Amino acid sequence: MCQLLGMNCNTPTDIVFSFEGFRLRGGLTDSHADGFGIAFFEGKGVRLYHDDKPSASSPVADLIKTYQIKSENVIAHIRKATQGEVNLANTHPFVRELWGEYWVFAHNGNLRDFHPAIGEFYRPVGNTDSERAFCFILEQLRQRFTEKPAESVLMQHIACLVKEIRAHGLFNLLMSNGDLMFAHASTLLHYIVRKAPFGEAVLLDDDINIDFAAVTTPNDRVAVIATLPLTTNECWQQIAVNELVCLREGEVVFSDAPEPKQFMSIDEGLCIARSVGAAGACD
Amino acid sequence: MCQLLGMNCNTPTDIVFSFEGFRLRGGLTDSHADGFGIAFFEGKGVRLYHDDKPSASSPVADLIKTYQIKSENVIAHIRKATQGEVNLANTHPFVRELWGEYWVFAHNGNLRDFHPAIGEFYRPVGNTDSERAFCFILEQLRQRFTEKPAESVLMQHIACLVKEIRAHGLFNLLMSNGDLMFAHASTLLHYIVRKAPFGEAVLLDDDINIDFAAVTTPNDRVAVIATLPLTTNECWQQIAVNELVCLREGEVVFSDAPEPKQFMSIDEGLCIARSVGAAGACD
Repeated sequence: MCQLLGMNCNTPTDIVFSFEGFRLRGGLTDSHADGFGIAFFEGKGVRLYHDDKPSASSPVADLIKTYQIKSENVIAHIRKATQGEVNLANTHPFVRELWGEYWVFAHNGNLRDFHPAIGEFYRPVGNTDSERAFCFILEQLRQRFTEKPAESVLMQHIACLVKEIRAHGLFNLLMSNGDLMFAHASTLLHYIVRKAPFGEAVLLDDDINIDFAAVTTPNDRVAVIATLPLTTNECWQQIAVNELVCLREGEVVFSDAPEPKQFMSIDEGLCIARSVGAAGACD
Repeated sequence: MCQLLGMNCNTPTDIVFSFEGFRLRGGLTDSHADGFGIAFFEGKGVRLYHDDKPSASSPVADLIKTYQIKSENVIAHIRKATQGEVNLANTHPFVRELWGEYWVFAHNGNLRDFHPAIGEFYRPVGNTDSERAFCFILEQLRQRFTEKPAESVLMQHIACLVKEIRAHGLFNLLMSNGDLMFAHASTLLHYIVRKAPFGEAVLLDDDINIDFAAVTTPNDRVAVIATLPLTTNECWQQIAVNELVCLREGEVVFSDAPEPKQFMSIDEGLCIARSVGAAGACD
């Protein structure tokens, strides 16, 4: 299974600490060795880095570590390809413009029989189910709204579209327009909101710790979202099965989930991921 | 004035030699020190690197040197900002999807009173005249053709749109869909086609030379396009004033120019660029 990493905060923050743990899962501490991609919003612009090398050993990932780009919204994806070739057009995250804003999307999972009609406004360039799903969401939003609707309307519509797509299979996603960060779980997705008083965190995948109090101000609020928790000594919240949450400035501002909420165990989630992989689909 | 660099070839080729000379103009041998961007097509995908640091000293540019990405179509841009802030949303090249293909665009020059109506399909994210021109071209193509038209029709339509836009001012551009490379000159744009028998080339901006015979096969054909010639010992062809050329696999396949062709001297071109800069516009 591929893995997702996201960050949403109220002040430009570098993601190096979380990314260091995350990238090691691409070929070193785990087997997601078929490339990676990361998108950083800076204002309305997006800085996008893709590489088809494993993230653990990629020179592009090394650059991200040394460059320490600060961003309020980041989406990263490491890939374990089980179908199709490893090529750039199929590498997440994907980017499109809608209503004069860039939208960024990454997915893990597998959608069966998901072949919506060719869009009037958005078409996939590669051949993944993921890019089809992203284009479908944007197409439906643009068909319905010539101009960006009120935020509550936007969130409700995205929730409806996500429900429609997940009927086709596993649909763990991260999507952002540089302001809002949407996260939806079919299986595993966790998040943590770090705010004052900041403490120390210890990476699960590497012998690294950080004292956030030394690198933040008391007003900072930083949400990190990842397929699996990245640190050992913090309490990560799990997103429920079929729950969509939306964050802004590091806090959850919208949630849509079936009641009662159900949470998948990590073992079960990984087992499903492996069986999806064995069935030949993870994009 | 900003500077442009493009490459179009019949086999994936690394642009490191040309890029090394070009990037030094971003802050070292010339004063284009307000960031740069470069887009590499790989198949249908695009690898895009932007940086708001001067290209001569950018760690992203260092990565491009060491990584030696091979591509059949490359567009790079270094910026001398004279209006507006230096931010990511305003950094060339710009990318959009049209007919299921990524299109990449970079511009130098200055368009006056160019404010087309808001597009149905494409809208700018930043606030440069350049991105407005790119979105206008794509919008008009998409409005006219739901599906990609025959190539000759496409080229003629792009030639018409370029004529319409250049009535507003200086419009030196590079644009590619990963197959065709369009180049239009209002002032200065030069190109060279390298093919067998390959010789040695010496960079104008650095003490570097290369023996292309050692790094190519006899079938390779590589066109390099740049605002100003990059080498001292090769014969670069100048694109005429108001000429649009289109290249594929390293050779010119279409040209549209007023007769008789007029060629601007480098001194005159640089003088115009400086006066445009002084008037406060170069995006």
